[in-house]
Amino acid sequence: MKSSRLEAFSDGVIAIIITIMVLELKAPEEANLKGLLSIAPVFIGYLVSFAYVGIYWNSHHHLFQITEKVNGKILWSNLHLLFWLSLIPFTTSWIGENHIKSLPVALYGFVFLMSGIAFLMLKMQILNTHDKSAPIYEMIGSHKKEHLSLVVYIVGICFAFVNTNIAIICFMGVGAIWFLPDRRIERNN
Amino acid sequence: MKSSRLEAFSDGVIAIIITIMVLELKAPEEANLKGLLSIAPVFIGYLVSFAYVGIYWNSHHHLFQITEKVNGKILWSNLHLLFWLSLIPFTTSWIGENHIKSLPVALYGFVFLMSGIAFLMLKMQILNTHDKSAPIYEMIGSHKKEHLSLVVYIVGICFAFVNTNIAIICFMGVGAIWFLPDRRIERNN
Amino acid sequence: MKSSRLEAFSDGVIAIIITIMVLELKAPEEANLKGLLSIAPVFIGYLVSFAYVGIYWNSHHHLFQITEKVNGKILWSNLHLLFWLSLIPFTTSWIGENHIKSLPVALYGFVFLMSGIAFLMLKMQILNTHDKSAPIYEMIGSHKKEHLSLVVYIVGICFAFVNTNIAIICFMGVGAIWFLPDRRIERNN
Amino acid sequence: MKSSRLEAFSDGVIAIIITIMVLELKAPEEANLKGLLSIAPVFIGYLVSFAYVGIYWNSHHHLFQITEKVNGKILWSNLHLLFWLSLIPFTTSWIGENHIKSLPVALYGFVFLMSGIAFLMLKMQILNTHDKSAPIYEMIGSHKKEHLSLVVYIVGICFAFVNTNIAIICFMGVGAIWFLPDRRIERNN
Repeated sequence: MKSSRLEAFSDGVIAIIITIMVLELKAPEEANLKGLLSIAPVFIGYLVSFAYVGIYWNSHHHLFQITEKVNGKILWSNLHLLFWLSLIPFTTSWIGENHIKSLPVALYGFVFLMSGIAFLMLKMQILNTHDKSAPIYEMIGSHKKEHLSLVVYIVGICFAFVNTNIAIICFMGVGAIWFLPDRRIERNN
Repeated sequence: MKSSRLEAFSDGVIAIIITIMVLELKAPEEANLKGLLSIAPVFIGYLVSFAYVGIYWNSHHHLFQITEKVNGKILWSNLHLLFWLSLIPFTTSWIGENHIKSLPVALYGFVFLMSGIAFLMLKMQILNTHDKSAPIYEMIGSHKKEHLSLVVYIVGICFAFVNTNIAIICFMGVGAIWFLPDRRIERNN
Repeated sequence: MKSSRLEAFSDGVIAIIITIMVLELKAPEEANLKGLLSIAPVFIGYLVSFAYVGIYWNSHHHLFQITEKVNGKILWSNLHLLFWLSLIPFTTSWIGENHIKSLPVALYGFVFLMSGIAFLMLKMQILNTHDKSAPIYEMIGSHKKEHLSLVVYIVGICFAFVNTNIAIICFMGVGAIWFLPDRRIERNN
Repeated sequence: MKSSRLEAFSDGVIAIIITIMVLELKAPEEANLKGLLSIAPVFIGYLVSFAYVGIYWNSHHHLFQITEKVNGKILWSNLHLLFWLSLIPFTTSWIGENHIKSLPVALYGFVFLMSGIAFLMLKMQILNTHDKSAPIYEMIGSHKKEHLSLVVYIVGICFAFVNTNIAIICFMGVGAIWFLPDRRIERNN
């Protein structure tokens, strides 16, 4: 099967995930600066989650750029990734409403961790459909960046129960690693 | 007419159906474990319905993979299927709010039953546009899996008024049958 | 410019329009037949509007099936059509909540009337980009069905202030005319 | 990388942005003219924002019509544009609820200003991937219209704190400039 429809469906789901978060940004009742500032935490949460979902869309785009054929396992691995991404609006909204407390911050990180694991599983399923000698192995055969991310997420989740600021710095750090898409894929396309 | 636009439109509708269910997952007021547990039933409902809609998307993808041309009847059969699928967020939300009672469980199964019938009708309309000797008949010409599903749904709906747990086991059972997409289609694409 | 992106964007907007109407279907508080019956008017409104939006998607699909190139005027005519279609969830929800009263019914018809006019304008813009001798003129050059629809809509809107049932019969009648897509296009594709 | 998936994703996000604004149009409680008039300001806000988002979709469509390849920087410039566009439903809703006051009007203009800057940045990233002698430079190499728009937006934002009517006239004026897509692109495609 071709990957075009998997890409179109993922685009649709990610577009909706990224956009429904803005529904949480409710217009403040007061038409002044105080009203505007009252929604600042929700806005920052939106900004961070928008960037995160954007990073995933970017990575997904790069990944399927070099994928030629998909099978049932890849379809399900992709749905598994979309499931975890679809929970980001929920965890974002819990943080936004409760400001920065341990459990919401830990859950925020947990959904990122599971999304990271799901992305790695998807990548491995795609690699499995190719020969070990195919150029895709040279391009995405290393999982260093993924493994590092998962470790930092776990550290961040643990810190959420000690100091939420350190936890958030961990999560931001992973975002920064991924902000730059993989040059090896880009060079070849 | 080519099937590409029908697929794109269906992808859009299914992407929205699968994603708007997460809007029901409202952030709990309390930032602790008690708050998180309070939304557990809604979360499980979301998980099951996500899997179900994912199964339909997968089956739809496999079906149109082997469909070359569409006509007006296929367009309407497809809209008919999307109509029933679009009711899944509603039945999911009714179960989630009322926990597990007879009528919501029966209605949950009824929408699955109607989606199953609509899928079978769509499949038959697609078969009708081909010669009886076409390879598509060998691949999807048998409706055993569909007929079995419909019978199990009906049994489950009846049990909803006796024992809701048995009803839910029936519905899960059908999901398990469909989790694995049709190998005959995959082999040929 | 090719029409593929215009079609994809329209598919997205129409998919969202058709799906957000289901958000109006709120799960009833009671888990019994009385609760279910209480949302019956909203459900019927959803069903009718789903069918109507489905008819428009179908007609749009048929129209662009025979359109090869688009220009800025066609892009804007298409956005104009999408604007009126996007109001259908609003008018549907007003009818659903207020049952069947004069002004909501008239407005419901008015949005259908404007959608019909917008569709006719779009069709004419598309015809304008072709030579009068092109086969598209033979296929969609006649506007009899469109003109009849507009007249019946206007009659229905007037009747909304006298007898809402007659108004609704008028609107349903137009739907019935359009349910069958144009055979002339299908035969040629 | 090809631009097709970037276009599909942008279409999805823009389709959702343009459509979720209609969710703000809540059915009035009264089924009469008074009820209908009570939502007039929200409706006008919807109309203006629909037109604005439509203009952006149109310009985006024209821009990528002549873009052949995309890279990581273009993907991020595009996400940056979508971020600002995604805030339009929020600023629209703040104006709609508070009628026309200084801060909401200024913020409304500010999001338009940032969208305009993001669009210009995206255009420049696309130009950077081409030779200075490529035909794209002749078609979109001039940024006069963009620079004029940004100046008018800034003027409008300043006036929001003096006279909101003048501010709104400024914002409408920019819309009018962009309503007509670039003839140079259309002629060549």
